[in-house]
Amino acid sequence: MKVHVKIWIEDDEGECVMGDGRLELLKAVMETGSLKEAADKLGMSYRYAWGKIQKMEKRLGMRVMERQKGGKEGGGRSDLTEEMSAFIESYEKMKSDMDNICIREFIKIKPSCFRKI
Amino acid sequence: MKVHVKIWIEDDEGECVMGDGRLELLKAVMETGSLKEAADKLGMSYRYAWGKIQKMEKRLGMRVMERQKGGKEGGGRSDLTEEMSAFIESYEKMKSDMDNICIREFIKIKPSCFRKI
Repeated sequence: MKVHVKIWIEDDEGECVMGDGRLELLKAVMETGSLKEAADKLGMSYRYAWGKIQKMEKRLGMRVMERQKGGKEGGGRSDLTEEMSAFIESYEKMKSDMDNICIREFIKIKPSCFRKI
Repeated sequence: MKVHVKIWIEDDEGECVMGDGRLELLKAVMETGSLKEAADKLGMSYRYAWGKIQKMEKRLGMRVMERQKGGKEGGGRSDLTEEMSAFIESYEKMKSDMDNICIREFIKIKPSCFRKI
């Protein structure tokens, strides 16, 4: 038996600003250095991914990505802003802390409750 | 901005044994003393609710409900077993602990990250 935890952040209107899907997209941007490649990797259209980023920026009230034109590959590069990278780092730590705390808590309540029929 | 947490428990085959929906049903049984009334209250059929309870018993490997025939109302009464009541109590405490911990953690990471554009 295993306990699962899911966390997400909503803005004051109840719209999601961060959760598993957005985290996956942002991490793919960090890895590939390109929103286009990140979208491809996750099987979503560039338009959809770009819309997600724009909504995040609006809802969070902070810049999420910065685009650099050109570069040695000639195609430009997308990076997360420093603030967003710092937020992702803290958010992932929070996620992993929550997982660990929950597993620990569940171990505490498990043996006393599950007596076999 | 607000952080949300959802927890649920799966058995070794990845089937859910406890989550928000099941908790709601079990608490309604506790309140009404009847699976029929609990199902009505939540707008589900008795058959569906009964199926959920049976699956839970199988997956958890423990008796969830006990039925008492007759009673002064003549309709019998359904109660959670002692083990299940104890588990619900621990599970709800774990849920609320997780909520509180997550809110506390989020407050810690929020101010340093959200600088307005």
